[in-house]
This record gives sequence, C-alpha cells and structure tokens, in this order.
Amino acid sequence: MDSYLVPLGVSAAVPFGGRHLSGLALRLEHDLLLFDCGEATQFRLRAAGVRTGPLKAIFVTHLHGDHYYGILGLLATLSLVGRTDPLTVVGPEGLAKFVDATPAMESRQRPFEIEFVELPPTFSSGVVFKGDSYTVRAARLDHTIFAVGYRVDEAGSPGHLNVELARKLGVVDPVQYGRLKSGEAVVGMLGRVESGEVLGPPLRGPSFAYVTDTRPCAGGVQLARDVDLLYHESTFLDKDAERAVVTGHSTAREAAEVAKEAGAGELLLSHFSARYREGDAFEDEARTVFPACRAAVELQRYDVAASRNRITNANGI
Amino acid sequence: MDSYLVPLGVSAAVPFGGRHLSGLALRLEHDLLLFDCGEATQFRLRAAGVRTGPLKAIFVTHLHGDHYYGILGLLATLSLVGRTDPLTVVGPEGLAKFVDATPAMESRQRPFEIEFVELPPTFSSGVVFKGDSYTVRAARLDHTIFAVGYRVDEAGSPGHLNVELARKLGVVDPVQYGRLKSGEAVVGMLGRVESGEVLGPPLRGPSFAYVTDTRPCAGGVQLARDVDLLYHESTFLDKDAERAVVTGHSTAREAAEVAKEAGAGELLLSHFSARYREGDAFEDEARTVFPACRAAVELQRYDVAASRNRITNANGI
Repeated sequence: MDSYLVPLGVSAAVPFGGRHLSGLALRLEHDLLLFDCGEATQFRLRAAGVRTGPLKAIFVTHLHGDHYYGILGLLATLSLVGRTDPLTVVGPEGLAKFVDATPAMESRQRPFEIEFVELPPTFSSGVVFKGDSYTVRAARLDHTIFAVGYRVDEAGSPGHLNVELARKLGVVDPVQYGRLKSGEAVVGMLGRVESGEVLGPPLRGPSFAYVTDTRPCAGGVQLARDVDLLYHESTFLDKDAERAVVTGHSTAREAAEVAKEAGAGELLLSHFSARYREGDAFEDEARTVFPACRAAVELQRYDVAASRNRITNANGI
Repeated sequence: MDSYLVPLGVSAAVPFGGRHLSGLALRLEHDLLLFDCGEATQFRLRAAGVRTGPLKAIFVTHLHGDHYYGILGLLATLSLVGRTDPLTVVGPEGLAKFVDATPAMESRQRPFEIEFVELPPTFSSGVVFKGDSYTVRAARLDHTIFAVGYRVDEAGSPGHLNVELARKLGVVDPVQYGRLKSGEAVVGMLGRVESGEVLGPPLRGPSFAYVTDTRPCAGGVQLARDVDLLYHESTFLDKDAERAVVTGHSTAREAAEVAKEAGAGELLLSHFSARYREGDAFEDEARTVFPACRAAVELQRYDVAASRNRITNANGI
C-alpha cells in the first residue's frame, strides 16, 4: 500500500460551512501519523474510516486552539478503548503541561505511555521522530506565536538493477540478483561483482511536508525542498494579502511560490479563512504560479507520491 | 416562544455510531443556557442552528472529558467572532484553572469577561445562577468523581383571573382587571377588591432538570421534584445493572424510577453507552416504570412544558 494522507479539517480558526478544524492523518505502510489535532479530530478520524490502532505519533504545529484542543478528547478515547501501545506527542513547549494538568487526564489511569517531545521557543530545525522506515523533521515557521512545520521522509529503496550488465559480468543466478539489489557483492561466473557496478542510483522514498500556520519563510521552503507532496496553508487570497501579513498567514499565491521555490512535486492548499466559501478561487490563484496544485478536500485520500507516478507515466518509463 | 431544549450529544464517554458527546442547549425566552460541553459542542450548536449570541451561562456537571473538553473550542470561537457580553461558567472546582491555564486561552485577548462559579467538593445544593426570569439550582449527584446536576425554574405567572367574580364584586373596567392580575388592589363600583379575592393560585413557570452522570440518588430526585421535563442519563440497560453500579451510572429503569419518585412530567433519556446501538430498548425499559418517557434524539427540539400542555389538553381546560 502506498502512503496517503487524509485532510480531516481545512478550516482556519473556526469551523465554518462544513469545514472542520486543522488535522491531517498520514497513513504509512505500518504506521499512522497525525499532524495537528484541532477540536473534533477524533470524530473526523472516525468519519474518514481511519483506525487509530496504528497511531504512532501526533505532531502539533503550534498552540493556537484550532490546532490542538482535540488532543484531549482523542487521548481520552484512546484510553477508554484500551490502547496500550506507547504514543509520541511532538509539539511546542507547554503541550505536556497542558495535557497533564487537565483534570480528567490526571485522574484517569491512562493505560498507555505518552512520550512528549517538546520543542523550545529557541528551536530551529531537526529530526523529531524516527519510525521503522521513515524520519520526521521539524523546522521553525513564521507565525504570530512559536510554530513549526514538519516533513516526513520515507526510507528510500535501492536503485534499479541493470540485469543486462550483470549478465555481461557473469551473474546469471536470480538469487545473486537479489543480493546485488540489497547492496552485497557476489561472485559470478566471471569473478566478483560489486552491487555498485550494476545498480542505478538509490531511489528516494516518498516525502511529505506539512507547513501551517505561517508566512512564506525559509523554514517552509526548507521543509518543502524536493518533497513529493507539500500541504501548505493558504488562509487568504492575494486580494487580502495584508490580512495574511497581520495574522501571520499565507495567501494561495504565496503558498504556490513556496512550492515552486522548493521544487515540490505537488501542492495541496488548506486552512481556508471563513471569509471564502469555495476552494476553487484558491486553486485558480495558486495555479498561475504552480500548476500542480489542488485545494484540499476533507476526508479525501491523497497519495503522497502521486506527482512522482504522474511524472513516471508521462515519461513512459 | 416557549422554552425548548436541544440535545447536542447523547453518547456516553466516546462518540459512537453517529452519537456525539454530552451537551444540551436550553433556549429560554431571551437567553440560551448550555449544560455540559463535550468535545465538538460548538459544531453541534452550529448543526442545530442554535445561535450563541444569547448564550448567558454554561453549566458543567463534572470534570470527565466527555462533559467539558469542548469548552475550550467554544470559548475560542466566541472570542474570534467578537463576543463582548459577559459569560458565566458554573462547574466543579478546577474548571477555571483548566481554562485559564490553556495556552491559546491565556495568550488570546478575550474580548468578553468570564465569571466562574466554582462548586467545591463539599457542595451539597443551592442556587448557582439567576437570570432575568429564571433561577438555576445545582445539587450534588453520586458519580465516580464529584458531580452535580442542575435545575432551571422559570418565573411563574399570576393565577387566572375570575372575571365573573370580579364583576360581581363591582369591577368592570378592563384596566382594573390588569391591575388585579398584577397583584394590586382596585376600588370598583362596590368598593375595594383585593387581587387575592379574584385570582386563582399563581401558576408555576416551566421547569427542567439535567441529571447526569449519576447513580439514582437523593440529589437527582431533589432536582427532578415536580419538574416538567427531566433529562436523565441512562447509560445502561437493566441487564447491565452491575456495570452501572461500578461506573457510577444509571440504567433506563433506574432513571424512570427517579422520574416517578420525583413526580416529573416527562422523562428524556440520554448518555447511552456505545454497547447499545438503538435508543428503543431504553424507552421500552423505562416506560414499564414511567410511561411519559422518550430516548433523546440529537438536534431535535423538545418543548420544556410539553407534558403540561398535554395534561391541559387532556383535561379540556
């Protein structure tokens, strides 16, 4: 199964017109990761048919309520359904105290451990979580309060094996092809063959960046660098660019400029202000700068590496 | 407009099968009151078409998450939409600290005042809020942690004027009828007439009791005494009565027994465990004890004094 994400809420600040508060589920091969956890995230996970059993970690961008109040209810429900697997919660300093000081949390015997990874206000960038086959990095963003974005890089795979060349070098045993693929050297009919002689360059794994809430900034570009799928906030349209500056947000055009500068494969827009009814205007504006762009639709599944597949297909490889 | 209530969530502990967490809106002539505020209450108010402008007070029964986590998001949204009217929040000790210690709350410049009325663990019963034309009382319940229920009594109205008798006593001026109704004495054609001579007994105003989460207990009966509409939890069916004892809850039968003992006009059941799919079984069980009973349906409107109207109609008065 290829990794995919499900936007759980694409509204900024307040629920409006059927849009919900910030939350995004990223389903990897074995694990589920959650980015932000606005109020009602547990309801949205249920509505999306995303099971919480594989949930490994929650990544909170900043401590504005629409991005994290839902963590209490989610943790309470995980307790009530008897979760025992440990859970990691990554976010700005203050998150652990908030959770631990909450009356029902404190009084409840939580049947699972929470490991908090708190990022201090001096945090700049770095690895914040490692899964079996992926790494999560954070970088500081530019918002009205301390905020970070995240990026997930799945493990890459070996390069393509040049079977024709391997045959020429005397390797004909399929078992030896497998060993070459995994980086080992083999001794074929004509002598020793190093894997590097017959393997193409290693393939990067799928990658995803989650950049919200923020002005266009170096941290956002850093997270989005060559990423397959960039999920970037676009709270406003360009005609309200001044509001974006004042409130520490981005316009659709600015999000597109970040995607373009970073060389992202695809851009998903989200975090829409209640002043706009439809997502179309965001798409239209951003596409003038970065064509591979869509306005995120809640509860829809988006393949992380879809842009890569499209490119592959277009090239006929 | 007669007062009515809207159940916003009738699920116990966790959202399940389309049921949401505890919350109930009570719409009075001028004011809106909210009882409990589980996660996503602000979404449910919106779904119910209940505007928050007239919200005067929030009454929290106890500090289990499914009854109060939603207060953060609701308060944040009230701030964002620019509320300036003061708001009263009534609930167990610890609620004010919870709200004030929450990062986004503390950092936000809230444009309205919150008056917290905190009930200490030693609280037994008493008036906790007074509106223009109603009084809210609380009484201690019997749950696994300190919990209270609430009761709202709307102001009564003068008794019926016996016009025939007033005429006999020499009062024929309609203006004087009005003064008699408002409790004044008048001087008619045959001399002074006291209002008490021509008015029937004063009429009680509509009354409503909110009793959750609790075992059947004296406090619940006290709140429900002669009430028009009793909203009582029935987390379990009688076949799971042992679970009700262990978890500090009531069965549908027990809720009905409270309604019967208290002489309530009508019983609405709620707070259903996720182990049951349908509300019908709760109704069926409770009706064997207390026939004027329904399982609450989310987002439906229930007139507070409907039972009284039914009795009135039945008697043809």
